[in-house]
Amino acid sequence: FSSKLPKIGTTIFTTMSLLAEEKKAVNLGQGFPDFDCDPALINAVSDAMKNGMNQYPPMSGALPLRLALSNKIEKLHGRHYNPASEITITAGATQALLAVIMSVVHAGDEVIVIEPAFDSYVPAIELAGGKPVFVQMTLGADGYSAPWDQVAAAVTPRTRLIMINTPHNPTGSVLSSADINSLADIVRNTDILILSDEVYEHMVYDGLTHESICRHPELAARAFMVSSFGKTYHVTGWKIGFVAAPAALMAEFRKVHQFSVFSVNTPAQHGIASYMQNPAPYLELPAFYQRKRDLFRDGLKSSRFKLLPSSGTYFQCVDYSAISSSNEAEFATWLTSEIGVAAIPVSAFYATPRESSIVRFCFAKQDTTLQQALQRLSKV
Amino acid sequence: FSSKLPKIGTTIFTTMSLLAEEKKAVNLGQGFPDFDCDPALINAVSDAMKNGMNQYPPMSGALPLRLALSNKIEKLHGRHYNPASEITITAGATQALLAVIMSVVHAGDEVIVIEPAFDSYVPAIELAGGKPVFVQMTLGADGYSAPWDQVAAAVTPRTRLIMINTPHNPTGSVLSSADINSLADIVRNTDILILSDEVYEHMVYDGLTHESICRHPELAARAFMVSSFGKTYHVTGWKIGFVAAPAALMAEFRKVHQFSVFSVNTPAQHGIASYMQNPAPYLELPAFYQRKRDLFRDGLKSSRFKLLPSSGTYFQCVDYSAISSSNEAEFATWLTSEIGVAAIPVSAFYATPRESSIVRFCFAKQDTTLQQALQRLSKV
Ligand SMILES: CSCCC(=O)C(=O)O
Ligand SMILES: CSCCC(=O)C(=O)O
Repeated sequence: FSSKLPKIGTTIFTTMSLLAEEKKAVNLGQGFPDFDCDPALINAVSDAMKNGMNQYPPMSGALPLRLALSNKIEKLHGRHYNPASEITITAGATQALLAVIMSVVHAGDEVIVIEPAFDSYVPAIELAGGKPVFVQMTLGADGYSAPWDQVAAAVTPRTRLIMINTPHNPTGSVLSSADINSLADIVRNTDILILSDEVYEHMVYDGLTHESICRHPELAARAFMVSSFGKTYHVTGWKIGFVAAPAALMAEFRKVHQFSVFSVNTPAQHGIASYMQNPAPYLELPAFYQRKRDLFRDGLKSSRFKLLPSSGTYFQCVDYSAISSSNEAEFATWLTSEIGVAAIPVSAFYATPRESSIVRFCFAKQDTTLQQALQRLSKV
Repeated sequence: FSSKLPKIGTTIFTTMSLLAEEKKAVNLGQGFPDFDCDPALINAVSDAMKNGMNQYPPMSGALPLRLALSNKIEKLHGRHYNPASEITITAGATQALLAVIMSVVHAGDEVIVIEPAFDSYVPAIELAGGKPVFVQMTLGADGYSAPWDQVAAAVTPRTRLIMINTPHNPTGSVLSSADINSLADIVRNTDILILSDEVYEHMVYDGLTHESICRHPELAARAFMVSSFGKTYHVTGWKIGFVAAPAALMAEFRKVHQFSVFSVNTPAQHGIASYMQNPAPYLELPAFYQRKRDLFRDGLKSSRFKLLPSSGTYFQCVDYSAISSSNEAEFATWLTSEIGVAAIPVSAFYATPRESSIVRFCFAKQDTTLQQALQRLSKV
């Protein structure tokens, strides 16, 4: 019996969450909030169920949710996606990512992946028969930045897709409009497509703007924008995401999507659609999480952890080289087991070997949780 | 831009549901109930949300649901699946089917598909790079039967998987233990795996037993059993399904599953787990649907439609050759548009060309809906 994914084990997120539970550690590993969502959102889903919204929705998603999304994207980013032909609701962003890749990557096609990268990207490319081509972000005084010269150098006639992610997990960096222009220069006059993972779209700090791919008409014309509601509304377990793309690309996406899940939980779709009528929850998100980021950073300032910049997402990376010479996986395991705070080793986001001493913490937690973690970390 | 699935259009289920809506036809096409689920089930999901069950569940599924399933399967079929390593919750059966196929079918592997077959099987095989090998059920006086001699003849050294489906969509036939023994004879001393789609597991009529693959130790040792809660609990839109398989197979499945959706709607999983403590809803299902089947069949007895046997599922196939010489797609379209009753052409379940005049009706409808459809059909 031969494996399709011989190198794959259990995801680091599952592994660290289980270890955190076993060791009774404060879990700042896997990215999810430890506080609850707005009760109004729960009531909206309950109402949908009570109103009989329990059978198959349209394959492309419940119409009210596609409409709400189309309006929101147009208001925020100035681009109109036709809800009938350019928006599809997915079973979270992970399902969207795999289905996009399966719908455009043919056997032997190359996909440029900028490391560090979310751990589903590479297996998804491999399952589609594609070949990941890696380039690495560079870490400077201002934090991580995307290496556009290396991306340009990695392009070949077989390049089918470039994957980007902004705000970026795990580094917390965000692409600027200069970054997006560099990407546009690279793909102009090619038929390379873009897959833009924007699940942290509403978590951008310090007055920065989220440069969604759909703000840039030249790139949006060849892009799949993927996001989800789990992070935005504090319901990571509901697994409702979406893809927005020009109609021709969306038609290909839907061919795969319809045989990959057919459709997505009906009551959650209707509940979210009705809750989205109020923009306050996502408009308040930057301030909400910036305060938590600052609380967490302030608590580590006098520690021996070196704080890297975090301009977006709900993640904070730290360099622990002043503390230990262990590799990242060993250090994260030690931190979880011995100090009682779970973190994610950034090596989990790399296929390419490298020397580095960085772990990621998630600060989407109650203040009391963060304080407890800080107390433990201050002993290191 | 070249398509990964050039032959694929919109699924027939979506197409016919849209046409039914446009023509204000009674929709006996796509398989879903037009009545609501038990309010107790809705309350169980609402309670789960209110109790904070809104973040990522384990990748393999919420533990209470895996436990409840393991107990149920053991009670009904006498096989123990370890909830930790042999059961995984999926985003419906369609996602389970694709992920099973992606996890075991390598490029060039052959998969034996018995036609008529659910329309996601073949695209799923193609997306995995596999090759579907078709054999056809035979239609005799007793209805459709599986052609084991043809299945045996179709086996080659490249055969990786045989797909079965019982109770069978669209024919309503159910496999007997003699069928299962024939299948066992075919795969004995090979390394061929079985994928058994059992989403209609609780809809078996006339006192017949559902011959789940897991009742047969020799086959269960090499089988993925796939089912879902959507049909059983009248919530086709919730999209919660599962896979049960021996640990070694399940380990491969989970590698793909974790990158295909990562995990599945948390509150629905907890709500279903708590609702499952009461076996009455699924124990009552055969009587509930047998009555509807009989109501529908009785209403067509004096029509010019020839009723084929229906021993399981919530589908009734009819032969219309006494009425029209149109092909099945034309006839179903005509029936929807002109008579006002939507049906599914059985040709949608075949890749292999054939001559036949059969359409499928879904009788999972309120009695008044069935009566209205019968009134219209009696005019044909
Ligand atoms: C899908 S589990 C991982 C959650 C997440 O986005 C992260 O922790 O990076
Ligand atoms: C996934 S839509 C189709 C529903 C169904 O099982 C059928 O109608 O055959």
